[in-house]
Amino acid sequence: MTDTVLSSATKEVVIGFDRPFVIIGERINPTGRKVLAAEMAAGDFSRVEADARAQVEAVAHMLDVNAGIPLADEPAILARAVQLVQSITDLPLAIDSSIVAALAAGLAVYKGKALVNSVTGEDERLEAVLPLVKKYGAAVIAISNDETGISEDPDVRFAVAKKIVERAMDYGIPASDVVVDPLVMPIGAINRAGVQVMRLVHRLRTELKVNTSCGASNISFGLPNRDGINSAFLTMAIGAGLTSAITNPLHVDVVRACMGADVMLGHDPDCARWIKRFREAPPPGTGAAGEAGRGRREGGHRRRPA
Amino acid sequence: MTDTVLSSATKEVVIGFDRPFVIIGERINPTGRKVLAAEMAAGDFSRVEADARAQVEAVAHMLDVNAGIPLADEPAILARAVQLVQSITDLPLAIDSSIVAALAAGLAVYKGKALVNSVTGEDERLEAVLPLVKKYGAAVIAISNDETGISEDPDVRFAVAKKIVERAMDYGIPASDVVVDPLVMPIGAINRAGVQVMRLVHRLRTELKVNTSCGASNISFGLPNRDGINSAFLTMAIGAGLTSAITNPLHVDVVRACMGADVMLGHDPDCARWIKRFREAPPPGTGAAGEAGRGRREGGHRRRPA
Repeated sequence: MTDTVLSSATKEVVIGFDRPFVIIGERINPTGRKVLAAEMAAGDFSRVEADARAQVEAVAHMLDVNAGIPLADEPAILARAVQLVQSITDLPLAIDSSIVAALAAGLAVYKGKALVNSVTGEDERLEAVLPLVKKYGAAVIAISNDETGISEDPDVRFAVAKKIVERAMDYGIPASDVVVDPLVMPIGAINRAGVQVMRLVHRLRTELKVNTSCGASNISFGLPNRDGINSAFLTMAIGAGLTSAITNPLHVDVVRACMGADVMLGHDPDCARWIKRFREAPPPGTGAAGEAGRGRREGGHRRRPA
Repeated sequence: MTDTVLSSATKEVVIGFDRPFVIIGERINPTGRKVLAAEMAAGDFSRVEADARAQVEAVAHMLDVNAGIPLADEPAILARAVQLVQSITDLPLAIDSSIVAALAAGLAVYKGKALVNSVTGEDERLEAVLPLVKKYGAAVIAISNDETGISEDPDVRFAVAKKIVERAMDYGIPASDVVVDPLVMPIGAINRAGVQVMRLVHRLRTELKVNTSCGASNISFGLPNRDGINSAFLTMAIGAGLTSAITNPLHVDVVRACMGADVMLGHDPDCARWIKRFREAPPPGTGAAGEAGRGRREGGHRRRPA
């Protein structure tokens, strides 16, 4: 029954075992997005704003904010992005950087209880990030790798996660404020990646009793029809115990998979959210099934008010 | 490691724990299809033939054949349908009737090892159907209800399944030839139906060690976007251990969900089947994502050679 409570100044979101699945929008991230990186480095945050609005309008429950731009002043840019995004949405944020000073700068301006993304099991990182998490009363994503890298053995990854949770508790951070990322590997390269991560998620849930999150899209790297693979992964992982993911809420199939998984687990009482989202009558003349049906659903998604 | 081997005269299909998920096409069934029922009763099997070809062309691994038409000579019609379908496809068949004489008539003309659909835990049914299954060396779907009806308690349903498996063994039918249907209830009416069936499938797999099948579409009865609910159900149930389902292979989202689940479980080595199905390049001018992408995938599906 572990609950991880995140908040903005005015809104709470809870990641929890008996809660609807939490989608953390991944779009505000200049990694691999040259135009966005150049704009952010030059002080133009219009695309950050558009990405924030689009994800809010879709179905995201939280937004990840990353400002990882080579040679730029990442702490300043991340702080500004956090402030901007908080000015246009009340969704709680994940403050995302591999640079400790950037996490500190983001946390310093954040209003509410943020999710720090992330800390690994490396001692140096633990000693730098956990005091920050404690200082700001935040929660933190714990990535289950350490100095030895990413193990393909889920039992080793479980041990790393356990170490991070214990170390966090040493700093006065409760286990419920540590959200473990089991690390999702590309299944096109490692065919056992799915089985491994399902087993690890299940152990994290039942033995370590922590919430979990992951960069879901990694699973489909290099494969065609990535939405299809991502949907299968998320549905099965939610069944195994996954409670949140950093993914793209603009991908309607992925959102549908997460909402369907909530229905399956009884986390959508009376299927009310499912029905509200999908009950729209078809526009006249589009027929009743097949592509027309699919088009309707996507249209319904985009027309959903923010 | 339970394998249930089914066959036609020339082709084997195996339902098994470490095998790709088996989709049993549900279309050849006059229940709720007035036109098909009237045609079959009048001796017109053209729609049966078309349904068979369409499902083969889609992705079905087996086909269910049902001739349940009120006041018609069901044994004769079912036998004729079985012969017709076997003349146009080498996929193994499930012979589907609630009338024992119809099952007998279908089995008498069937070439290969059929899947009898179905027997319940009612003593009278067990005593009528199991000798037939044994006589023809068939396998059988065991539905986990009995004289007392369908229990909402998955432990009661497990006990019924166990009774059927034991009774089958008394008749010399190995447990590997009993495929248990855990009974899927509409989740719109019973919010715990998903959790119940996942738990039952897991117990059937790990404790009773049998293969499983179900009428997957029941789960979404009464809800909008049924493909979305069916996809979520199948993906999560396959993760929990479900090894086959009777469903509609013409629904591309459902097929995609089953194929994605196979990838997740490592049952699609090198993701070869996934890549083959979805790797098509986009037609010129359709763009690279969104609806265009979805349309392409569906087109690829329908164009797949039989």
